[in-house]
Amino acid sequence: MVNKTLTTHVQHLIQSLVQQGVQHFIVSPGSRSTPLALLLAEYSRHVNSSVEVHIAVDERDAAFLALGLAKTQQAPVALLATSGTATANYLPALAEARLSHVPLIVLTTDRPQELQHVGAPQTMQQVGMYGDHVKAAMQLTLQDDHADVSAYIDYQVQQLVHQAVTQPAGPVQINLPLRKPLMPDLGTEWPDVQVQTFLSGTTHTDVAALMPVLTNKQVMILAGPAETAWQTESFAALAEKWHVPVIADVLSGVRGQAHMIAGIDALLAADAISTDMVPDVVIRFGGTPVSGRLLPWLHTADVLEIQVGTQHVGHDHSRHTTMNIVGDDMTILQDLLTMDVVGDKRFLADWQATQGRLSAVQEPSTLTEMSVAQALSKLPVDAQLFLANSMVIRDFDNYWQPSASVATMANRGANGIDGTIASAVGMALNGQPTWLPIGDLTLFHDMNGLMLARQNDIDLTLVVTNNNGGGIFSFLPQSQADDYFEEMFGTGQDLDIAKIAALYDAEYHLVTDLTDLTRLVDTQWHGLRLIEIKTDRAENVFAHSERIRSLQEAHHE
Amino acid sequence: MVNKTLTTHVQHLIQSLVQQGVQHFIVSPGSRSTPLALLLAEYSRHVNSSVEVHIAVDERDAAFLALGLAKTQQAPVALLATSGTATANYLPALAEARLSHVPLIVLTTDRPQELQHVGAPQTMQQVGMYGDHVKAAMQLTLQDDHADVSAYIDYQVQQLVHQAVTQPAGPVQINLPLRKPLMPDLGTEWPDVQVQTFLSGTTHTDVAALMPVLTNKQVMILAGPAETAWQTESFAALAEKWHVPVIADVLSGVRGQAHMIAGIDALLAADAISTDMVPDVVIRFGGTPVSGRLLPWLHTADVLEIQVGTQHVGHDHSRHTTMNIVGDDMTILQDLLTMDVVGDKRFLADWQATQGRLSAVQEPSTLTEMSVAQALSKLPVDAQLFLANSMVIRDFDNYWQPSASVATMANRGANGIDGTIASAVGMALNGQPTWLPIGDLTLFHDMNGLMLARQNDIDLTLVVTNNNGGGIFSFLPQSQADDYFEEMFGTGQDLDIAKIAALYDAEYHLVTDLTDLTRLVDTQWHGLRLIEIKTDRAENVFAHSERIRSLQEAHHE
Repeated sequence: MVNKTLTTHVQHLIQSLVQQGVQHFIVSPGSRSTPLALLLAEYSRHVNSSVEVHIAVDERDAAFLALGLAKTQQAPVALLATSGTATANYLPALAEARLSHVPLIVLTTDRPQELQHVGAPQTMQQVGMYGDHVKAAMQLTLQDDHADVSAYIDYQVQQLVHQAVTQPAGPVQINLPLRKPLMPDLGTEWPDVQVQTFLSGTTHTDVAALMPVLTNKQVMILAGPAETAWQTESFAALAEKWHVPVIADVLSGVRGQAHMIAGIDALLAADAISTDMVPDVVIRFGGTPVSGRLLPWLHTADVLEIQVGTQHVGHDHSRHTTMNIVGDDMTILQDLLTMDVVGDKRFLADWQATQGRLSAVQEPSTLTEMSVAQALSKLPVDAQLFLANSMVIRDFDNYWQPSASVATMANRGANGIDGTIASAVGMALNGQPTWLPIGDLTLFHDMNGLMLARQNDIDLTLVVTNNNGGGIFSFLPQSQADDYFEEMFGTGQDLDIAKIAALYDAEYHLVTDLTDLTRLVDTQWHGLRLIEIKTDRAENVFAHSERIRSLQEAHHE
Repeated sequence: MVNKTLTTHVQHLIQSLVQQGVQHFIVSPGSRSTPLALLLAEYSRHVNSSVEVHIAVDERDAAFLALGLAKTQQAPVALLATSGTATANYLPALAEARLSHVPLIVLTTDRPQELQHVGAPQTMQQVGMYGDHVKAAMQLTLQDDHADVSAYIDYQVQQLVHQAVTQPAGPVQINLPLRKPLMPDLGTEWPDVQVQTFLSGTTHTDVAALMPVLTNKQVMILAGPAETAWQTESFAALAEKWHVPVIADVLSGVRGQAHMIAGIDALLAADAISTDMVPDVVIRFGGTPVSGRLLPWLHTADVLEIQVGTQHVGHDHSRHTTMNIVGDDMTILQDLLTMDVVGDKRFLADWQATQGRLSAVQEPSTLTEMSVAQALSKLPVDAQLFLANSMVIRDFDNYWQPSASVATMANRGANGIDGTIASAVGMALNGQPTWLPIGDLTLFHDMNGLMLARQNDIDLTLVVTNNNGGGIFSFLPQSQADDYFEEMFGTGQDLDIAKIAALYDAEYHLVTDLTDLTRLVDTQWHGLRLIEIKTDRAENVFAHSERIRSLQEAHHE
């Protein structure tokens, strides 16, 4: 009895390791590691003879052997052990490797979930067992037949080897729970793996090497969320020189510059991107974009994705980025600006026309949750914006179109709705007038943040869209579970925003039409201010779908 | 689109929590936790109205609410959060709960494996995030449709709640990666869950409450590996009084007493247990038995399993133990001895006859790896035995039948083959003559342990079955992979045992027949002694199968 899913996944694992430069595997025999051991033997003998498998029965020695080999070869070396204390014998050599910066890839095989913590033989806590003596420790479940798993293995294993070799280099652990039957399907065809490249972008020459990839291609720039202050004008300059559109995430800081495309998620929702507007190549700056539709669209259209920078290399949950240019992102941007990529004016014009249609369908007269984003597009130049998560940031990503760059921030590492007010107070401590559009539930999560606002000499305006509960859930499948929805998801807290304002000595405004809101945007203020806009969750869902419908119509006219 | 596998597993999870006394669930709404939230709402409204679901939108407060409720109710309370920083808000209350001994069950929902470490939204390291502030942290993959997973959830969740309420009580974490679609199948039938009971065994009255479970039943005792010195005569006394067989694991220390059954794995392999020898109830002492066939057999025959003790409660990878008597195992054994369970003499006699046939098929004339166990059955009463793992301990479990109790030990927590000689030296430091039967590969793994043997004033004999490599692999499926087997698994190291003995100033004997080995067992010695028996891996597989065949024939005669 052979195990086909397991065979495929192990083949991906081995080939991904080799693609990233692992040529030597040190195997210490055992039972649980059988599928890896046998497929490695087959691979090295029949598929790729440049790969060498070394047998070392004592795991302590195996790891020190790998250490010496990796130091000599100046390349990552992989270790393979069976489950249990065998893996613990690696620790002495891993401690040395961590401190002397040697990239070892430790493959520890393990028992599957149903044998954990129940006294099964040779089963112990393996994930994280090496503590800080490895740079990273993760687990891959190789018998998960979900369609995404092979691609995930390709992506993640290659990323992990990159992490091991990135200076300061060091060991990493991949724990592999395996379920019987352990016999792989020997002699089966080896699949191709998707190869990721990690190129240095530290010199001008490095970046210029991209030229062949960009020549005669429709290029697009994606400016995702920025974690440092970017040279926003350089994006505009690149768009101007190359005739390329720049997709400007709401957190990129580049909105307000020329040639920027805002609202990509709405455009995709409205199916407003024609086939001839699909780029061949996208150069990505910054983190995961706020738009949930953007990365899947690039993936489906099989656009070549190039990620630039250091922080977000290998950080793409769509697993479609296959090229990474590793270096300071703004230096790379300057280097790109020196290159003569001749783009297609028509391509940029199509994108600008589409973006124009989005602006046209905005309805400036009605006050909806979306029009808060429109009203705040007119913030004065010295203002800054902290965006609450959940619905607010999505509305701003689609409908906020400032005419000049405005500093924008949100908590998008883990996307929580907790601590939002306190984080915005942290932003406002620089003395600039700060705007915080926020939902009532997010406000409630950080009521105490208002105390910090009161206690500090800051200028902070909260624009509270109060739909009495969790508005985003009305857009999700559970909104169909009528019997339970309001209790489990809607969860209106019946907040009295005026009383909250009173409690914290804040200025309070109840706004019922857009003109009032626009006027408040123009008004100078000092201290803490709460502007409340009462909305309705069901109406909000309707207004959003109407907006997308209008955009669809505008596109097909 | 609803998710059926997920629905079933979540139903098991909820019912298992409730079975162990969780009546209150504090839910903080979110998207990733949708299936649990909706099914909890359905369960509390339509299936079990004694269960209460409380909504608290701020997770920090939710956890402190649970704390107060659990203290007041003196019962475990469950918390449910969506993924990301929401879960981190529990930490302050968990720190308090850990120190004030409050059993909180923290259910943290998470993204599935393919979204980990790749910049997916609201995804962060959740397993183990509470550090020492929880008593235990584990993960259940609820979309794994392997047949064992529902039973594992039943077993493990109940065990975890037991762990939370066991003094000193405290919080535990269950992390739950969930893949879309997240909508559960509402209105579907709720399955029955297998219920585990954890009964106190601290007083005589507690134990006497077992009487109804044992009356008019065929009872069997399983003496598994002991971690403390047991009153071995009490097992014999119980067998005598109740007319019940005692399955004596090689590490139980009770072999050599009357009515003990040794070699259960061989008996099961030979299909030598008739249907009328299947017990109704088995009372289990100690840890996971060495026999790999025993627990699956009990499970398949649906025998009521009662685990006694404190160390191994809830530690059964066959997940079939449904009753646990929690208390000092030897106190409980004495309490059982006072009970008048009237057993069936015929039942015990059948077991003894079967065991007798196993003894009869032993072949005392030939020297095989198995006959080492036979020869060492005649160890003098002051001797002690440390068993190497892998093949040695299995052969001893089947074929070692001492005529009096001999102290026996092995490393069976994680079953490694590392450090065996050093561990045996540790045993021998008590001054008693110590025997260590060991394979050549296990010996090689701890060559340096021989230095400790030389440096200490101990009497240690290694009986090395040298089949030049990993003998156990010849019994596994990979032995069919002819092209790769010897390189990847056989891995003979061509050890020269005589030279090893010379290096460590040890007495060396090459033994070629059983008489010589038996004579050496009777010979007094001082210091370190190596006895080598050269065997052949292929012949060893054949000899084992011949032994089982003989046993089969003897059984059917």
